[in-house]
Amino acid sequence: MLAIWIIIAAGVLAVAYGIWTATELLKADAGSPRMQEIAAAIAEGAQAYLKRQYTTIAIVGVVIFIVLGLLLSWTVAIGFLIGAVLSGAAGFIGMNVSVRANVRTAQAASKSLGAGLDISFKAGAVTGMLVAGLALLGVSVYFWVLTGPLKLAPNDREVVDALVALGFGASLISIFARLGGGIFTKGADVGADLVGKVEAGIPEDDPRNPATIADNVGDNVGDCAGMAADLFETYVVTVVATMVLAAIFFAGEVTLTRTMLYPLAICAACIVTSIAGTFFVKLGETNSIMGALYKGLIATGVLSIVGLAVATQFSVGWGEIGVVEGHTITGLHLFLSGLLGLAVTGLIVVITEYYTGTGKRPVISIAQASVTGHGTNVIQGLAVSLEATALPALVIVGGIIFASQLAGLFGIAIAVTTMIGLAGMIVALDAFGPVTDNAGGIAEMAGLPKEVRHSTDALDAVGNTTKAVTKGYAIGSAGLGALVLFAAYTNDIKHFTESGVAYFKDVGTVNFDLSNPYVVAGLIFGGIIPYLFGGIAMTAVGRAAGAVVEEVRRQFREKPGIMAGTDRPDYGRAVDMLTKAAIKEMIVPSLLPVLAPLVVYFGVLFISGSKASAFAALGASLLGVIVNGLFVAIAMTSGGGAWDNAKKSFEDGFVDKNGVTWVKGSEAHKAAVTGDTVGDPYKDTAGPAVNPAIKITNIVALLLLAVLAH
Amino acid sequence: MLAIWIIIAAGVLAVAYGIWTATELLKADAGSPRMQEIAAAIAEGAQAYLKRQYTTIAIVGVVIFIVLGLLLSWTVAIGFLIGAVLSGAAGFIGMNVSVRANVRTAQAASKSLGAGLDISFKAGAVTGMLVAGLALLGVSVYFWVLTGPLKLAPNDREVVDALVALGFGASLISIFARLGGGIFTKGADVGADLVGKVEAGIPEDDPRNPATIADNVGDNVGDCAGMAADLFETYVVTVVATMVLAAIFFAGEVTLTRTMLYPLAICAACIVTSIAGTFFVKLGETNSIMGALYKGLIATGVLSIVGLAVATQFSVGWGEIGVVEGHTITGLHLFLSGLLGLAVTGLIVVITEYYTGTGKRPVISIAQASVTGHGTNVIQGLAVSLEATALPALVIVGGIIFASQLAGLFGIAIAVTTMIGLAGMIVALDAFGPVTDNAGGIAEMAGLPKEVRHSTDALDAVGNTTKAVTKGYAIGSAGLGALVLFAAYTNDIKHFTESGVAYFKDVGTVNFDLSNPYVVAGLIFGGIIPYLFGGIAMTAVGRAAGAVVEEVRRQFREKPGIMAGTDRPDYGRAVDMLTKAAIKEMIVPSLLPVLAPLVVYFGVLFISGSKASAFAALGASLLGVIVNGLFVAIAMTSGGGAWDNAKKSFEDGFVDKNGVTWVKGSEAHKAAVTGDTVGDPYKDTAGPAVNPAIKITNIVALLLLAVLAH
Repeated sequence: MLAIWIIIAAGVLAVAYGIWTATELLKADAGSPRMQEIAAAIAEGAQAYLKRQYTTIAIVGVVIFIVLGLLLSWTVAIGFLIGAVLSGAAGFIGMNVSVRANVRTAQAASKSLGAGLDISFKAGAVTGMLVAGLALLGVSVYFWVLTGPLKLAPNDREVVDALVALGFGASLISIFARLGGGIFTKGADVGADLVGKVEAGIPEDDPRNPATIADNVGDNVGDCAGMAADLFETYVVTVVATMVLAAIFFAGEVTLTRTMLYPLAICAACIVTSIAGTFFVKLGETNSIMGALYKGLIATGVLSIVGLAVATQFSVGWGEIGVVEGHTITGLHLFLSGLLGLAVTGLIVVITEYYTGTGKRPVISIAQASVTGHGTNVIQGLAVSLEATALPALVIVGGIIFASQLAGLFGIAIAVTTMIGLAGMIVALDAFGPVTDNAGGIAEMAGLPKEVRHSTDALDAVGNTTKAVTKGYAIGSAGLGALVLFAAYTNDIKHFTESGVAYFKDVGTVNFDLSNPYVVAGLIFGGIIPYLFGGIAMTAVGRAAGAVVEEVRRQFREKPGIMAGTDRPDYGRAVDMLTKAAIKEMIVPSLLPVLAPLVVYFGVLFISGSKASAFAALGASLLGVIVNGLFVAIAMTSGGGAWDNAKKSFEDGFVDKNGVTWVKGSEAHKAAVTGDTVGDPYKDTAGPAVNPAIKITNIVALLLLAVLAH
Repeated sequence: MLAIWIIIAAGVLAVAYGIWTATELLKADAGSPRMQEIAAAIAEGAQAYLKRQYTTIAIVGVVIFIVLGLLLSWTVAIGFLIGAVLSGAAGFIGMNVSVRANVRTAQAASKSLGAGLDISFKAGAVTGMLVAGLALLGVSVYFWVLTGPLKLAPNDREVVDALVALGFGASLISIFARLGGGIFTKGADVGADLVGKVEAGIPEDDPRNPATIADNVGDNVGDCAGMAADLFETYVVTVVATMVLAAIFFAGEVTLTRTMLYPLAICAACIVTSIAGTFFVKLGETNSIMGALYKGLIATGVLSIVGLAVATQFSVGWGEIGVVEGHTITGLHLFLSGLLGLAVTGLIVVITEYYTGTGKRPVISIAQASVTGHGTNVIQGLAVSLEATALPALVIVGGIIFASQLAGLFGIAIAVTTMIGLAGMIVALDAFGPVTDNAGGIAEMAGLPKEVRHSTDALDAVGNTTKAVTKGYAIGSAGLGALVLFAAYTNDIKHFTESGVAYFKDVGTVNFDLSNPYVVAGLIFGGIIPYLFGGIAMTAVGRAAGAVVEEVRRQFREKPGIMAGTDRPDYGRAVDMLTKAAIKEMIVPSLLPVLAPLVVYFGVLFISGSKASAFAALGASLLGVIVNGLFVAIAMTSGGGAWDNAKKSFEDGFVDKNGVTWVKGSEAHKAAVTGDTVGDPYKDTAGPAVNPAIKITNIVALLLLAVLAH
């Protein structure tokens, strides 16, 4: 049991790093009273929104808690509770650090770019380490409680179900937080842009725009808290799914406990390397922000190779572990699978940076298309978003094939675990984005010198790319993680059938063959979910943004002094309105992926009368969600990132292929703003929310099996 | 052999109907010399484009013809040639009728709406019946030649391969024609709109716009000839795939020939009912154009029930036919499967009309979103396009489940055959659209009274919906048809393995189970194709449109007299430029789905060294293309149709939810034009071209099996 204590210690280390860094952060200069006043308004709005969001989720959560307790057991229900509470905590604390770091970043940026980067990156690192640390602590401590004090066997169904329920708790928070936060932030952003930049012709974050505080609140509740919940969930679910697979594959082997701890050990090692990596993020002589961040990421990656080796050495060792589905699996195979996970992460980062980075072919093509109008900008953006799926998908295909050649399905599971192990560092790279975005807003509203805004804009542009990169990483690991969940699903059915559980006695062999019409029907049915879900999310943002536009137009009309600068807009109304809209709009689509597996299973069972057909259709629908979801999410997040940076290309003047320079305010820039507006809900609401939707369907299916078997 | 003669007679009847109706059409008044001059320019451009397109395809075709001849046999190569030539002929003749009917429709519309509908619908019916007639003749005559004079057994591999090659010929023409025609028509349309409506503020089809003839040429080469090639291909491929399945399933049974003829008999019956249906299309007292078209469609549908019964009675009978995969199949089962196909068609028509029709919730929501700007219009349009996939996918899922309960995979095949049997009528409903679009253009350019334009606009608006409906129908039947092809693929592998063909001796069992990592990798790989293909197509349109914009801007700049109406624009240059651009841009993406199956098979074979894994990955990639392609294509075609009609909502003044009326030229209308521009390549280039892409991958895979077995 020494191993579990080391793992728990790594989790504690991450949380301690978070607390220490946050304390350091708060010591920094918080700027002028005007800046602090603005920051306070943002903080107040963000806290009010999150409280309301979590209260709403709590109602759904309590119902599920009781249902799980009654249908399965209270150990399982408590697992669910732990997942939900920790996920909420990671988002809430991250947001609280973020709303304090924004004003300090603005103040620091007024001294130097390096100082601004330092504060904002540290704020991101707090969120990152909290996500990774709390996730690892949740899983490892509860696993220890179950197998230690409660004396359950590591592969006892009670343990497996409790861990799956822990993942479910995280997923539930995640889907609501991603969607609610996403609707809030993009409703505000799109609304503020449309009425401010396009109609009134005032710059972003201009204090005369009544939606500007709401826009900044959105960065914190959507891009910070929502993203944190998403990655927390992917982390927990991936680790849990890998443990469940280990429990199934290595049942009866002496190596069982060690292989179940192996994913936890990998994550523990990667937390240490991620913390080490943060110290490498320093602005070099070239002043390249992306370069500074890359230094940290590369350091983490290289150190993780060592970490992975240490984790392998001290948990499973390098020799033979067992035989799974005809593969003789050794520790070396698993180590190599882990390296493959690191390689997949690296490739996805590079590819996403290519598709969304300023100065690269895709972004330039969108900027160029803006010259001929709004329509061509959007057409080219959609073209880029469609095209951007190909290479990441190829990388994932390669990852699947090579990992499964190394160690079958368990190889894939270890590859994803290693990928997600880096979450601490990746989230740090992402969460610094909203902080700098906010800092820019505060600088603008507080009337700081132009140079400050210039520094925060430079940070923000890089933030756009790192945000897209994180999303690529999140969806890539979510897709692979969901495959692991799917493997757990098929193996669970096998397990229940073979062990003669009552409900499964008359199931027979479940045929997942593609020539089974129920499998094809299931695949197509599953494919509906990301599309329908995405469509509803986009509609919600459009509606929220439309409401913001009307509210702002009303304020401009009723108080003409606002535009003249003599009257103060009512910022609170926009925040309030969006809070209500986002909470209301998030509920139905969030329940869609939760309920879909139940509809498929009982629907097909009703029509066909065959449990085997129903299980086959349900399984196929899970894969349908994964395959379609993967493409939809990558297309949306990459396309949106590219649109955003295409717009940014105009801020320093974009030189088109005929040598004409187009500046801010030109017709081409307006077209680029339209593209950015379209990309906003694509990349920050619908796309990332597909992520938890993919996993929640898989987890619900696993829980359904547990309930049926119970 | 009486049955085959009756079937051939039905094909001849369709062609005769086409010739007779075309002759009738040409007798109608062709309008003033100015109108005829414009129509002649359009006809000239369309002919020049098609000649160039077919010449380019011919080069690829000749290479494939020789390769097939050498690798398989000349009988197979000739099958390929027949498919290609007949597909080209259907498109070419249809286009030629269309460019003559446009001016006559304009002239007739100056008398009454009913007269305009009559001419334009008849023109559409010519194309429709030629598509169905030539397709049925191609398959049935060649089948007769092979099994009659050449004395081959109906399920001889030579016959099966020759029929598949016939489908491949049709597919090859189709993918090039859809893509090339789509790039031409939307490059012209988007370019003309951007520079005309948005920049210069002149109406659509204004003779001062140098791109206006190109726009009208595009309607004929893309929406008419391209669509005809697409449906011809779906028809041939569906019938062939069903015959191949029959050849595999009923091998050795006495019912073999009859079941192979059954799909042909269904199509023959449906040709007769489609011709009968055309006589029901008459404008009623309510002047509802959609109502008139629905009368024809419903008549065809109802008569087809009788037709299906007759076809069943005289080919397979109502009793037991054989046992397939545990299903005892009777004629009644197949008849009911056919009815299911009719029901699926009906539901898809109704659903697509809902999502794209003027005055329905989705279109109104896009129009409403235009009030708050370009960005919200596009966001809402994308939301509708995502959402619009759900119900058609559900209908397809239902079709698969119920048909397979009736008669297994063969039930699905018969359901799709019946669906596609209605192609004559459906194409008629679609092909009247480009004729009326052109008629409107001619009326505008020739300066006919406003009322004429009003009539042609009303016809055109319905044309938008019927075009979307046809695309929904085409993609639905293509998706289901592709499933039949996929079934043929898996059964072919089984057949080759069991019959001990040399190459297949060491294959063993091919595992298409979803828990096989190669299957998952294949699914994701296949999913790349519709996305990458769509992305390239969108980029091509954007590039072509950008070139048109620059050309038109140049003409306006160099000849200021154009805008004043004193100087004539150079229409020919835009047509020439687009012809070159479309031909150049269509080649690479068209080859993508053709080559992808070869890459998957040999790539996986190289990596894994296992033929079974390579076949599994290839099979799964086919299904990946189908599942992703289905959603991408429906999203694009429905979304595009909705955008188009949202724009049309402003032409008579759109009343928003606050009661404000927005007219043509208002800011809201401009936003709606942007959405329409984005929707254009979505619905008319990328979306429909995904259709043949889906099938061509499946056909190439089947041919690959044939080559490997040879």
